[in-house]
This record gives sequence, C-alpha cells and structure tokens, in this order.
Amino acid sequence: MKFEFKPGLALLACLLAPLSAANAATGGEPIQPIAPARVASPATAELGKMLFFDPRLSKSGFISCNSCHNLSMGGSDNLKSSIGHGWQKGPINAPTVLNSRFNLAQFWDGRAADLKAQAGGPIANPGEMAYSHELAVNTLKTIPGYRGAFKKAFGSDEVTIDRVTQAIATFEETLVTPDSRFDKWLKGDKKALTADELAGYKLFKDSGCVACHNGPAVGGNSYQKMGVVEPYKASSPAEGRVAVTGQDADRFNFKVPTLRNVELTYPYFHDGAANTLPEAVDTMGRVQLGRKFSAEENARIVAFLKTLTGKQPQFAMPILPPSADATPRPKPFD
Amino acid sequence: MKFEFKPGLALLACLLAPLSAANAATGGEPIQPIAPARVASPATAELGKMLFFDPRLSKSGFISCNSCHNLSMGGSDNLKSSIGHGWQKGPINAPTVLNSRFNLAQFWDGRAADLKAQAGGPIANPGEMAYSHELAVNTLKTIPGYRGAFKKAFGSDEVTIDRVTQAIATFEETLVTPDSRFDKWLKGDKKALTADELAGYKLFKDSGCVACHNGPAVGGNSYQKMGVVEPYKASSPAEGRVAVTGQDADRFNFKVPTLRNVELTYPYFHDGAANTLPEAVDTMGRVQLGRKFSAEENARIVAFLKTLTGKQPQFAMPILPPSADATPRPKPFD
Repeated sequence: MKFEFKPGLALLACLLAPLSAANAATGGEPIQPIAPARVASPATAELGKMLFFDPRLSKSGFISCNSCHNLSMGGSDNLKSSIGHGWQKGPINAPTVLNSRFNLAQFWDGRAADLKAQAGGPIANPGEMAYSHELAVNTLKTIPGYRGAFKKAFGSDEVTIDRVTQAIATFEETLVTPDSRFDKWLKGDKKALTADELAGYKLFKDSGCVACHNGPAVGGNSYQKMGVVEPYKASSPAEGRVAVTGQDADRFNFKVPTLRNVELTYPYFHDGAANTLPEAVDTMGRVQLGRKFSAEENARIVAFLKTLTGKQPQFAMPILPPSADATPRPKPFD
Repeated sequence: MKFEFKPGLALLACLLAPLSAANAATGGEPIQPIAPARVASPATAELGKMLFFDPRLSKSGFISCNSCHNLSMGGSDNLKSSIGHGWQKGPINAPTVLNSRFNLAQFWDGRAADLKAQAGGPIANPGEMAYSHELAVNTLKTIPGYRGAFKKAFGSDEVTIDRVTQAIATFEETLVTPDSRFDKWLKGDKKALTADELAGYKLFKDSGCVACHNGPAVGGNSYQKMGVVEPYKASSPAEGRVAVTGQDADRFNFKVPTLRNVELTYPYFHDGAANTLPEAVDTMGRVQLGRKFSAEENARIVAFLKTLTGKQPQFAMPILPPSADATPRPKPFD
C-alpha cells in the first residue's frame, strides 16, 4: 500500500501519531513495554505503602496486604492458595499486585472495578484479614502518626475507608516492573534476547498464547474460559466471572493473568495447581490450545517467559507509627 | 578525695582511660549511647537480610523471622504472644530483635548464647516455623540465587545451617537504633530532653528502675526475678531461667528486656500482659520496687521512656531469589 500526501490526510496523520509512535517503538508487536511508575502524589503513595504493610488492618494484627502480595516475592505469596485469619485456607491463588494497574478489573473474576475497590475486599473478608472497614478506620484514627500522614496526603487528618483504599491503590499503582530483558528487546536492543528466547517468543505468538496474553502486562486485559479445548479440572471451587455477571456463559471464565514476572509468581492458575513454568505451559497448551508442546518447544517458551522479569520495585521498608494507649488491640485468638 | 600525681598512678590512669573516656562522654550515667551499626561483612549481612525475610525457612512458606520480629514495628509483632505454624498461640511475647546484639544471651530465659544460636530455634520449633534445619537447608540449596549469595558471603556456595544462622545473626547485628533523643542528651545536647523527660529520667534512676535497666540497651544484661516485692501473676506458662539452669532459685527469673524503642514494642513483659507504657510502669513499680507511682510520676517516667526511641534501621526490602522447579514446595495445610 502506498500513501500519497493529501491535505485531508494531515488530520488523520495527527490522530494516528500516538499509535504510530507506539508501533514504531515496539515494532508492531502485540506486547508493549512497561512504562516506569509515575507517582502522581508521593505523600499519598507513601501513606499507601505504610497501610499496605500494616497488619493492624487485620483483626489478628498479623496479616497485612504484603502477607499475600509479598513485594519480596514478586508481589505474591508463592502458595497454592493463601492463608487467612486463623490459618484459613483461601479458595483461590493470590494474584500478583505487580503491574495490577494494567488489569481491566481486579480479582480473578473481575468483581472489583479498580485497585481502590479491590483494596477494601481483603480487609473485611472473614477468610482473609477478618476485620471490618469501620474497625480498621477506628484503629487508624487513634494512631497520631497516621493522622499526620493522612493530613499530608489528603489535606486533612480525617481517616475514612475511602481514603484508606485510595492511598493503598495509589501505592499499588507505583508497583510496575519496567526494563525486563524482553522490554529492552522490544525497544530495539536486539541482543537482549538469546536465540532460544526469541524462538520461544515466536512460538508463543504462532501457537496462539498471545491471543490472550498481550498488551503491556502480557495479560490482564480480558476474561477467558479456563479449559477451552479440554475441560480443566480445578482444585478450587471458584467458578469465575459467573459470580459477577450471573451469566452461565461466564462459568469458568477468569481474568487472564499477567505474565510479567511469571518466573516469580509460581504456583500458577487460579487454583495454583501448576508448580512450575514447564507444567503451566504444558497444561495451557493442552487445555486452551489443543496442542502438546514438545520438550524443546516447552523449554523455549519457558525461556521466553523468564525474559519478562522486570526491575522489581525497590523501596525502603516503611516504619509504621506506633499505636497509642487508646488504640484497640489485635485479637488473633478470639 | 584528692589525688596527688605519683609515678605509680600512671599505669592505673592508663588502665582506667577507656572507662574515663566513656564516663566523660556520658557524664557518668548508667546508660550509654548506642553506637551506629558496624557492618563487618556486607555480603553476609545482605544474605542474612534475605534469609530474615524469607518465609521458605518455614514449613508453611508463610512465616519468616520478620513475621514476629517485624522491622516495620520496632522489631516485634506487637502481639501478646506470637502466632506460629497453623495459627498456634505462642507461649511468650516475642522480644524485639532491635539492639538484641547487646543482650547477654538470647530468648527470655537466655537459652541461646548468642544471635547465631538463637536464629536456629524458631526455624525448627514446631510451634513457630515448624520446619527443620535439614529441610531448610535442602530448600535453600535448590535456589540458584541463594547459591550465589552464599558464595559471595562465605567464599563457596555450600549451604549449611551453620552458615544460615551465621548470616542471619550478622544481619541482626546491624539492627541497632542510635541517635535517640536520650542519646543526644547523653552526648551533651542538653536541649534534647524536656524538663518533664529529664524529671522522668531522674525518677527512673532514683526509684531503682536503673538497677536492672542500664547499659547501652537499658536492659538485656542480667536476669532478674519477675515479682520481687509482690508475686507477679503471669498469663504465660514460662518459668524463665530455671528451664535452662534447673536451679529452683532461677524460677521466674527472666532476662531483663531492653527499653530501647520501648514505645514501639508493646505489649510488655514476657507474657505481654501490659498493653501500654503507663500500665507497664505501674506494674513494675509495684511488683519490682514496692512503689506506687503517682499519675504524675508515671507520666514523667513514660515521657522519659519515649526518648529512647532511636533511628530505626532503614533499608531496601530484599528481593528474594525465586524457587527453582526442583525446590520443595511449602506445605501450609499438611
């Protein structure tokens, strides 16, 4: 195809410019590089970091957001299913918080529209942190160091669940992992990948993985049925998106997980049944694509997937403000 | 008393010089400033930090050293007694890891001679991390990132429990909290304390608290009976030092806890029965000194105690090396 310059096309060219720039930068690939974190409000993100690490948002005083979305371990807990209040066994594998800002919605079934809506969930879930929004807010209100941090973030020291979840979400929005080797390759550094890794990427595209795992997060942007070609026998009772929509067609539809940092976020799938990447790739090939990857193909795809490990968020551990005499005490054994 | 210079005193003067220097620096006070951390082997401390934060040293894959000695919360868990494997209720309050290098021995009953000996305890305690030294070592051996870190720290990539505990202890030795306001006062900044805080310190000395709470850690350097004047009715079954010595005289003798950062390390006592500093000061006055502090006296002592909060260790959260395919998986619910 050939374009001749015509005055009328000038406007079209302007409109397409951002897309063209993106395509030029990534060579038209279906995966785009992760951009570094933009911190719109450092004071809010800093407060959110404190809250993310604070087990006083749980009834027990023992479980924080970081317990299951551990930022030392790829933003996950590396457990098949998470451990909640009283050592309850969670029904589902904890998704990574890293790059979760790119998800079209939060939770495996997308029941939270955004990170702010998600953040309130575990606090009040009796199987997770087992507290309530009211109790969490009442606890924070009594802590002078938090009053100051809320004032800095929001202009007044009022503590509300809306502000709590907003601050946590603002912190989580900073948790992106740019500069993976694959991103370097996307940006033009052709030496960033080995021949095997590149062959793995080609296979990932050619065999159809990329149909669901695409975009900057290599997933997170659609719901798909788990078990397209073969039924998937899950060990989790979760039924996916049907729980939100009530539509039978959405049964076993789950949000496609991001493959960014997948090397760090084992075990895999919503039920955490696959312990290793070779196992996960094998299962996905069979149940989603009707394809049995050879050992060599599997190894190449795994090699490619490991190039998606990005620069992990690096920050100083927060020092949490101490409780005051009036602060309600945790009740781990009640 | 008056000294005339005599040749024979020169030697004595030399021998006393270090003590004199210390006295000059601290004005002869029974509490000495905390010195900043000296990091003898940065590579070993860095490895130790990773291990300190790694829940793969527990059977569940959920509990790390930092779970109960949380460096965001004064090196403690702020719980009456800790939560162990399977949500077991621990028998005793978790002591802070901050400034623990100054303790004459570790644990409340001093059953570990040093930090290295202590570090192996919780890993293998069925009520805490519920793993074993052998299983912990076998897990770490399979993780390539750890092999590299052991090589950097120890010159070879061999993983042994001796090296694991040595690395954790080396990290813990860095966890000191210098530059509290009280230390500034000790070093000559007379404006570092308010009149009330200073009155509290005087009372702390005059009423006898300082007999046990002295030295750089304001405690940690002797065993003392809990309940000297009045019996102390503990909610913990722990009997203290007798468990180590077998001597009946040591029953209810516990290591005197450090008062450094005591504002952060609530609740107090080996059974965690005192939720607040006013309550702890009141109880100590009664059962140890036979003295009922007035509300004003209590408030002054508490004001002094809060000047002992030092600069908390600040460091980047460690990024833990991922498990390999061959790494044994955690078993939280077995």
